[in-house]
Amino acid sequence: MVWTAFWIMKKQFEGYPKLSDFELQEAELPPLNNGDVLLESVFFSVDPYMRAYSKRMMKEGDIMLGSQVARVAESKNSEFPVGTFVVSAAGWITYFVSNGKDLQRMIPDWPNELPRSLALGTIGPPGLTAYFGLFDVCKLKPGETVLINSAAGAVGSVAGQIAKIAGCKVVGSAGSDKKVAFLKNLGFDVAFNYKTVGSLEQTLKEASPDGYDCYFDNVGGAFSSVAVEQMKTYGRIAVCGAISLYSDKEPQKGPYIQLAVLFKQLRMEGFLEARWQNHEEIGQKALLKWFMQEKIKWREHITEGFENMPAAFLGMLRGDNFGKAIIKV
Amino acid sequence: MVWTAFWIMKKQFEGYPKLSDFELQEAELPPLNNGDVLLESVFFSVDPYMRAYSKRMMKEGDIMLGSQVARVAESKNSEFPVGTFVVSAAGWITYFVSNGKDLQRMIPDWPNELPRSLALGTIGPPGLTAYFGLFDVCKLKPGETVLINSAAGAVGSVAGQIAKIAGCKVVGSAGSDKKVAFLKNLGFDVAFNYKTVGSLEQTLKEASPDGYDCYFDNVGGAFSSVAVEQMKTYGRIAVCGAISLYSDKEPQKGPYIQLAVLFKQLRMEGFLEARWQNHEEIGQKALLKWFMQEKIKWREHITEGFENMPAAFLGMLRGDNFGKAIIKV
Repeated sequence: MVWTAFWIMKKQFEGYPKLSDFELQEAELPPLNNGDVLLESVFFSVDPYMRAYSKRMMKEGDIMLGSQVARVAESKNSEFPVGTFVVSAAGWITYFVSNGKDLQRMIPDWPNELPRSLALGTIGPPGLTAYFGLFDVCKLKPGETVLINSAAGAVGSVAGQIAKIAGCKVVGSAGSDKKVAFLKNLGFDVAFNYKTVGSLEQTLKEASPDGYDCYFDNVGGAFSSVAVEQMKTYGRIAVCGAISLYSDKEPQKGPYIQLAVLFKQLRMEGFLEARWQNHEEIGQKALLKWFMQEKIKWREHITEGFENMPAAFLGMLRGDNFGKAIIKV
Repeated sequence: MVWTAFWIMKKQFEGYPKLSDFELQEAELPPLNNGDVLLESVFFSVDPYMRAYSKRMMKEGDIMLGSQVARVAESKNSEFPVGTFVVSAAGWITYFVSNGKDLQRMIPDWPNELPRSLALGTIGPPGLTAYFGLFDVCKLKPGETVLINSAAGAVGSVAGQIAKIAGCKVVGSAGSDKKVAFLKNLGFDVAFNYKTVGSLEQTLKEASPDGYDCYFDNVGGAFSSVAVEQMKTYGRIAVCGAISLYSDKEPQKGPYIQLAVLFKQLRMEGFLEARWQNHEEIGQKALLKWFMQEKIKWREHITEGFENMPAAFLGMLRGDNFGKAIIKV
């Protein structure tokens, strides 16, 4: 008999989530049927999308949505022998049973020396979001200038480095001086602390006086209202996230953007990484290659202990993490 | 010696333009050099873009920007013999001299029985704006549902009819019951008066309960805030105009749209017809063919007299015109 622990969303989030919105529960898992595997979660990821999608994908009492790197602990499925590592989206749960269909293998040539937590970060969904967002949505070209906000985050930090590899000028914003120093270390051409610059407009103008070709937007809201005005003609805006808006109780308002969109013939597109789920491999291979060539650096913010997942999640939403927010069980 | 009359923008528009912002002037034209032609304006067009671009393209004292159908009245250029009709963007002026380089010929197989004013409307820039906006920007496909506002206008009325030809369901809004009846006569599946429907949201939901694939936006602002929420996943928004915002003294505000753009993976793109200026012919030929097959109906709102241009322009901005606003000299 195997017992599992899991976090449920006890109460639908109103505004900014609270610790009391979560509850830790336990249950006994059923025995394995033929074809089943028992999985043990090793690393969890907490990401902004969990707040963004809470109302759309969960009801009260559901296991918190999320993904993990897990290890096959017991197997009645020859495709997944004991010891195999997989990526799963089973939510915040320590042990779980799967028939294998919803499991993603680690990419086949995953080097043993690489921490497997990277499959939740640089070489996982956040890295792929950066890759496809820049190349498929923004259609980034060498020599262009890219603006990235929340740039020290899991997606933004990879996006900036990929844009540098692609021969672009990269301007990034983050919410602390420590993160700004990190961005400069990653090779960002310009990095600034949006909390302490006097005027965002002035800062963006100085960073790129002739404007921006691409804007990789993780934030939305007031930041975007300023950034949209700094786009060049035919500029592209990839709306990857809108963390400034997820916890609104009432929709925030800002100036309408249609005039800028029209006069500059801008293209603005929202996207979710799942759109590319059937051809992720091309992105994974590119990311892994650049990683092994040390062209992409990484940083993780590891919280130890499954019991600390809600706190890690809330901290990530506040921007307390410095590097990809990972929970080690 | 030839005298010409022209309207200047005497005062840069502040908010909604006024008659006193314009002034009628006269001047003597120079004699023709070799290669020159003297042109006599026959029809003028007044369009929303003239308000939108007033600050960007004109300074006080400049001739009002705009286009006309003109006839060659005198010629020292063998490519443009006397009697040739052309489309020009010489502004609000009765006679003018050109070396031919900035003149656009009427399309070669223009049928004699067709009013030449159509080269400023259905088979001119407004029609082409509709054509390229739907097919190149929206990437409209048969079976999709399209929302068009300002649908009785020069662009909207063509867009709706083209979308019907393309096998789509078309929902249109306009600002009077007479215009709504016109839209129904054009074949719009649903048409409504946005000024008298109680709730725009409810009206859009009833017109297409499962949402909209494409939104051809001529209005922007508050209408768009409602429409964006009614888009389907992967919906496309072609921002063709933003007439609700052109005359703002202070930018209007509305709810940020990034959440809808993100969750529904919407694509929003601003465009100007000039983008396609080097391959307009494909659009002109299609429009002319449909027109001759009576698949596209048209309606003009003709104001007589060059002296009435400012009044016709202000009326068009208010939505007083019913059909393409044309001034007959």
